[in-house]
Amino acid sequence: MERIKPRTLSGFMELLPAPQMQMERMMETLRKTYSLYGFSPLDTPVIESADVLLAKGGGETEKQIYRFTKGDADLAMRFDLTVPLAKYVALHAGELQFPFRRYQIGKVYRGERAQRGRFREFYQADIDIIGDGKLDILNEAEIPSIIYRTFRAFGLTRFQIRVNNRKILSGFYAMEGLSEKSGDIMRTVDKLDKIGPEKVGVILMEDCGLTEQQKDEILRFIAISGSNGEVLTALEGYRGRNDLFDQGLEELKAVTGYLTQFGVPEENFAVDLTIARGLDYYTGTVYETTLLDHPEIGSVCSGGRYDNLAGYYTERQLPGVGISIGLTRLFYVLGEQKLLNDGLPTAPADALVLPMTADPGPAIALATSLREAGIRTQVYMEQKKFKQKMAYADKLGIPYAVLLGEDEIAAGKCSVKDLSTGEQVTVTAQEAAEMISAGMQKRNAGALILE
Amino acid sequence: MERIKPRTLSGFMELLPAPQMQMERMMETLRKTYSLYGFSPLDTPVIESADVLLAKGGGETEKQIYRFTKGDADLAMRFDLTVPLAKYVALHAGELQFPFRRYQIGKVYRGERAQRGRFREFYQADIDIIGDGKLDILNEAEIPSIIYRTFRAFGLTRFQIRVNNRKILSGFYAMEGLSEKSGDIMRTVDKLDKIGPEKVGVILMEDCGLTEQQKDEILRFIAISGSNGEVLTALEGYRGRNDLFDQGLEELKAVTGYLTQFGVPEENFAVDLTIARGLDYYTGTVYETTLLDHPEIGSVCSGGRYDNLAGYYTERQLPGVGISIGLTRLFYVLGEQKLLNDGLPTAPADALVLPMTADPGPAIALATSLREAGIRTQVYMEQKKFKQKMAYADKLGIPYAVLLGEDEIAAGKCSVKDLSTGEQVTVTAQEAAEMISAGMQKRNAGALILE
Repeated sequence: MERIKPRTLSGFMELLPAPQMQMERMMETLRKTYSLYGFSPLDTPVIESADVLLAKGGGETEKQIYRFTKGDADLAMRFDLTVPLAKYVALHAGELQFPFRRYQIGKVYRGERAQRGRFREFYQADIDIIGDGKLDILNEAEIPSIIYRTFRAFGLTRFQIRVNNRKILSGFYAMEGLSEKSGDIMRTVDKLDKIGPEKVGVILMEDCGLTEQQKDEILRFIAISGSNGEVLTALEGYRGRNDLFDQGLEELKAVTGYLTQFGVPEENFAVDLTIARGLDYYTGTVYETTLLDHPEIGSVCSGGRYDNLAGYYTERQLPGVGISIGLTRLFYVLGEQKLLNDGLPTAPADALVLPMTADPGPAIALATSLREAGIRTQVYMEQKKFKQKMAYADKLGIPYAVLLGEDEIAAGKCSVKDLSTGEQVTVTAQEAAEMISAGMQKRNAGALILE
Repeated sequence: MERIKPRTLSGFMELLPAPQMQMERMMETLRKTYSLYGFSPLDTPVIESADVLLAKGGGETEKQIYRFTKGDADLAMRFDLTVPLAKYVALHAGELQFPFRRYQIGKVYRGERAQRGRFREFYQADIDIIGDGKLDILNEAEIPSIIYRTFRAFGLTRFQIRVNNRKILSGFYAMEGLSEKSGDIMRTVDKLDKIGPEKVGVILMEDCGLTEQQKDEILRFIAISGSNGEVLTALEGYRGRNDLFDQGLEELKAVTGYLTQFGVPEENFAVDLTIARGLDYYTGTVYETTLLDHPEIGSVCSGGRYDNLAGYYTERQLPGVGISIGLTRLFYVLGEQKLLNDGLPTAPADALVLPMTADPGPAIALATSLREAGIRTQVYMEQKKFKQKMAYADKLGIPYAVLLGEDEIAAGKCSVKDLSTGEQVTVTAQEAAEMISAGMQKRNAGALILE
């Protein structure tokens, strides 16, 4: 037979079973945390009509998109979960209750240049809250509090949610007479972390055409730092010169104040005037989240407030606020940095039952009773030597082997071997279930991510 | 602004939040049940290189496939989860432990003619066990026992797993001198349920070129029915005339015998000689599953044994056995037939906390403590009238409203209103958590599917 070389496309993550189990834990944590805040799970198609997906059109997105025809249809694969959400709420607005809170964990596609740690197929894990006409500022404080709980649920403490408000930036640029250039300036300032203030200054003058004085004003402004209180106090100095600025400052103060009420500790969030988010659709609060010990990773969770989510599809005003975790990339860098807790079980089963008699009946019955106690149980069914069976359990990292020979069956018992300690005890099925459950609870107790 | 009409492609399921929650429950049940049997979750790319995905080539598949180019790459979207599994085990064989047990719940794509209840994007939920060189017959009995537990976990009892063995069929055709026509005959016999024995007979003579006597032999053979014991006894009458037949009969007897040991009641499985499965790669045991009260739906879970899963990619012999649930179609027909239990909660939250004071702090703190008790809690944060807030909870079907006014706050309490009964009590946060948890446990106790 002529054979095809099996391979997986570059830029497409395909995990071996053990890391896949770690990924599943992260997804389960996300589903659980998002659900606790009353978000509906949503699942939209991977493929949409190209004109729907590209309603906003233009730019980098269009170059990266997977677009193709099938019959007469011009189709495209989603490149994020926000555009499909916009379509969804526009299409189903009459059947939804607002505020509409949804989470979605799904694959998106971008034909980026293949590069280490860059993926063409990757998971995003998004939450968004969409209002009908209005959406209270409180939502802008709740979103980062959910991020806080999510990252804590991952086991992290050394992270910071950085918050800004684009009205403050836009208002400030208006004061300086730079409104028309504000888009370019914000995109430039957004690079501050990567290239530093000097290069930002050069680009501001050479590419954006700012005067030296304007450049200095901007660099002075974005250099405002210190505790959240200090930054807000410094911003008060600009108050009264521009309505949009004043409004942004009020919002930022509100969000900052409520964040404390939402139980987010001061050390886990910071007002940071350098955060702008390169994208156009944010209109108010913006967020980025960084791991304090790994700033090189960049933002692992970003988002913000948008005044009009679905303007390309409907005249209904649907403001929203949301964030997105780039899950595949986050998982990849956590693995690269050896931050994933390898101490947590990654085996597909908690217990491997080894029938030691010709009749597999008693082993099958025992496995059934262990499963009823919630224990993930595999019966080893191949005709192999005992040593090979044990090696199988060992290599998979299955914590417990349960042996069932003539003696055990006659005594109504089974032998449970803890494969990490080598200890073996002969007990009843019920005792075995209790023992294994207790052991697994301990083994599963650790954090997903180690700092 | 020029607007694009928001729409979802025909043949792509996009659910509203309430039915989506029902779908999530089905997926969660599948993940949980499959995990209890020691299967690893797997996640392979939606896109593969076209030559890899079409290694087997030809036929209906190639016409239906979503295939396109991106740059120089000839790409295709997976049309099932079995071919990607074959690629996966061939590619990673050196890093896997065999038997390799994996489950995968994922979207697959087939550009079928748009038709009510037919989907172009749909979920399959597969389990497979892959051996290295050999795979014990016991696995062929375990797979339907997992189907049994899965359907029971859905809440179903009125279903039947129908089992046959292709060696019996092939052996029988060999006895009749019809080996070369066996493929055509099996595909024809596979239509028996849909078109009846007479039309099958006509096709066998006219299209397959059988003599009347041969046709009669075949119709007599596939008409063998009765209890499992009776069918097996009837088959004994053919023994000794063909080795393959005899081997198939042994296997079928073994699978049937072990199924009882695996705890599958006799009424939930049946030896059925008409089951052939139209596909080529099954070589032994084959399965179909039907809902007894809804035979018109056809098989909702099918699969079988294949001797060589990855022959297109590797010379390594990798026999396997597996089944696939067409989840999207199953969900669709259950909905159409009104079989989904609408009594189970579909709201995104268990409790809606309504702050009745200007300061949302106490409401936020209360919500945090409810979440710590595992209660899915939303704080209603919009400035609306009380009636509108309650209407929001009502329309979403949120079971409990938790009211927090000045009086409650002063007393260190909150008022919990059961929205189904209208009863309201004023209790501490801890009592509220216990009450809501108990109530949700009751509400969540029912079966997913009603018969």
